[in-house]
Amino acid sequence: MLTAEKQLEIIKRGTVEIILEKELLRKIEKSLKENRPLRIKAGFDPTAPDIHLGHTVLLEKMRQFQELGHEIVFLIGDFTGMIGDPTGKSETRKPLTREDVLKNAETYKEQVFKILDPEKTVIRFNSEWLMNLTAMEIVKLQAKQTVARMLEREDFKQRFTSQSPIGIHEFMYPLLQGYDSVALKADVELGGTDQRFNLLMGRELQQEYGQPPQALVIMPLLEGLDGIKKMSKSLGNYVGIFDPPREMYGKLMSISDELMLKYYELLSHIGNEELATLKEGLKTGTVHPKKAKENLAMELVERYWGRDASLHAREEFENVFRQKGLPDEIPVVEMTWEEDPMWLPQIMKTSGLTVSTGEAMRLIKQGGVSVDEEKVTDPNRKLARGSYLIRAGKRKFLKVVSL
Amino acid sequence: MLTAEKQLEIIKRGTVEIILEKELLRKIEKSLKENRPLRIKAGFDPTAPDIHLGHTVLLEKMRQFQELGHEIVFLIGDFTGMIGDPTGKSETRKPLTREDVLKNAETYKEQVFKILDPEKTVIRFNSEWLMNLTAMEIVKLQAKQTVARMLEREDFKQRFTSQSPIGIHEFMYPLLQGYDSVALKADVELGGTDQRFNLLMGRELQQEYGQPPQALVIMPLLEGLDGIKKMSKSLGNYVGIFDPPREMYGKLMSISDELMLKYYELLSHIGNEELATLKEGLKTGTVHPKKAKENLAMELVERYWGRDASLHAREEFENVFRQKGLPDEIPVVEMTWEEDPMWLPQIMKTSGLTVSTGEAMRLIKQGGVSVDEEKVTDPNRKLARGSYLIRAGKRKFLKVVSL
Repeated sequence: MLTAEKQLEIIKRGTVEIILEKELLRKIEKSLKENRPLRIKAGFDPTAPDIHLGHTVLLEKMRQFQELGHEIVFLIGDFTGMIGDPTGKSETRKPLTREDVLKNAETYKEQVFKILDPEKTVIRFNSEWLMNLTAMEIVKLQAKQTVARMLEREDFKQRFTSQSPIGIHEFMYPLLQGYDSVALKADVELGGTDQRFNLLMGRELQQEYGQPPQALVIMPLLEGLDGIKKMSKSLGNYVGIFDPPREMYGKLMSISDELMLKYYELLSHIGNEELATLKEGLKTGTVHPKKAKENLAMELVERYWGRDASLHAREEFENVFRQKGLPDEIPVVEMTWEEDPMWLPQIMKTSGLTVSTGEAMRLIKQGGVSVDEEKVTDPNRKLARGSYLIRAGKRKFLKVVSL
Repeated sequence: MLTAEKQLEIIKRGTVEIILEKELLRKIEKSLKENRPLRIKAGFDPTAPDIHLGHTVLLEKMRQFQELGHEIVFLIGDFTGMIGDPTGKSETRKPLTREDVLKNAETYKEQVFKILDPEKTVIRFNSEWLMNLTAMEIVKLQAKQTVARMLEREDFKQRFTSQSPIGIHEFMYPLLQGYDSVALKADVELGGTDQRFNLLMGRELQQEYGQPPQALVIMPLLEGLDGIKKMSKSLGNYVGIFDPPREMYGKLMSISDELMLKYYELLSHIGNEELATLKEGLKTGTVHPKKAKENLAMELVERYWGRDASLHAREEFENVFRQKGLPDEIPVVEMTWEEDPMWLPQIMKTSGLTVSTGEAMRLIKQGGVSVDEEKVTDPNRKLARGSYLIRAGKRKFLKVVSL
């Protein structure tokens, strides 16, 4: 067992905020003294998951707690999912059946158990307790918070100010999520910065219900491959944990050096000391960035696909690189997509690959342009927002990322 | 059976507003055609009742509907009473037990059946359906209204603007009261002007649940004996329906001529035509106001205590009047109570009974002052806010009413 201070040091890595650090330290000390693991809550959506590295930031933090001997509760918020969108406005938020929820939970497990230890992970559904709340208990729960407090939440505040309607039931979600902490008697809750308000609600409600307030460990949202926006499927800047090894490897090799360090901090299993050494090496030049990126890509591919797959992915990547004459470092240009999709010759001009759209069109007609290593023959070709490797002629490469 | 138009005429008497009159007419027409009575909802507090004439305004309107052949639902809002004050801030709003509620209901019945026909009155408790609402049903109910709509309610708006806390559960009360109309499938709801928002909520929710919206019959709040403030026990300007006959008679004889007409309109069972004749007679001088007041007092005492009691009350009242040399009309002075209780000599000076407190003290010492026909001997006597008949010497009378 590590000392409380050592544990705290591990937990602190990569966090945005701990509320309150002193409380968390006390809790760990108490847990050591009483030989009782802390109960760590982390909530997840009940909709069908397709996890990418952005989601794993939280899972990795859960894994750390798990390795420190604490009890992880993987909480699936199925209750709200089973309500669906009660206003009936959203087609996509149809109520989930119990079967949907259980099926989604299985998909979740398959994915998260790549990171968490199935033996040590407790999976709970909040419908267990929320379904059975009586009308009276709900009124009493609602009495514990005020309208003004709710309107402090950023999105509510904005909608209220701009006179967009807020359904009264929307106030229930933070309350119910907070009540989950009461029902679980959570010692700690983990969540992203976007969950800050809801996490605080848990603390407040626990106190209202006579429990010691949970400590909060707040993680940043992981930037996507572009290094700018939050990783998300709809922005196309993500690495899915079930992306094939070669694709995952290639995507990770494309990130900037700066982003690589963030990924190391939030996703890699190397210890804090090793991480410090790596940073120092990069700064002094004793470590080459490409080598460091390779190691990160290897570690992550291995995590999701195994050692052999990672070795194979690296080999393939290097071969393609050599065959295609791709340079070690490809410059990245971030640019505004003026329309979506955007005309390829315009992209080439704006990014500086060619001096004019005319030159770009000529090059295309001559067969000298490829996008993601596939030759383009249509000078009217358009590209949707995303990131692309564009080659113009033999030697000019550019990675274009839409802003 | 009266025609729809005739029924509407009876229902309209004394109302502040009907929402919507056209709809109500349609409903009555339909009820006549289908030979199905309308279901009329009126909600009441579950706290121990002690009914005064102010409360009977609504009950008299219910009686009219009943006499027109419609079905009256006397709805006791016991659900919220059983919650009590969930914030725990109010000592006086302790949760009621099921036994409390049933006991209070018996007290209610005893009182309201002086006005309503017990055979034709359905008594319901909203806990019947509210207790069994599931958490999901509540979330769905809440989804039907917005935060902004709730904040339109006058008291919420004021508290929100002045930053006084509004508990989220407080939004539940209008929703639940509105849901009562859904559960009852009410055709009409009766209520005072202070209930306008909640009544409208019932209309809106019925539509959300696919029901035709109830029509609203909104009654004024009855002014108390002072003719200014709403009748209320705490202001001391009320006539309780269990006030002894003589007291009730005397209180009613003390009201102003103008107020008498309002009481006639809202409380008397005389028909619309007879009421019109009375008004005309008072205007032209063929009817003496004191006589009209006597008839009103007689009617009301008879309603609650029977014919004999009313005759007896009148006789006693007249005797006392003659014996004490009280004039037919006693001037009423409304004044501010600068402290509570207020020093009697100060009251006498301020109201103009004496020119100074010194004169008042002398008069008291000489035994020349009485309050409500009881002699005062202590010059330090103080009076709590309320209304008092003060006599100074043989001929000077004044009715003092605290503002």
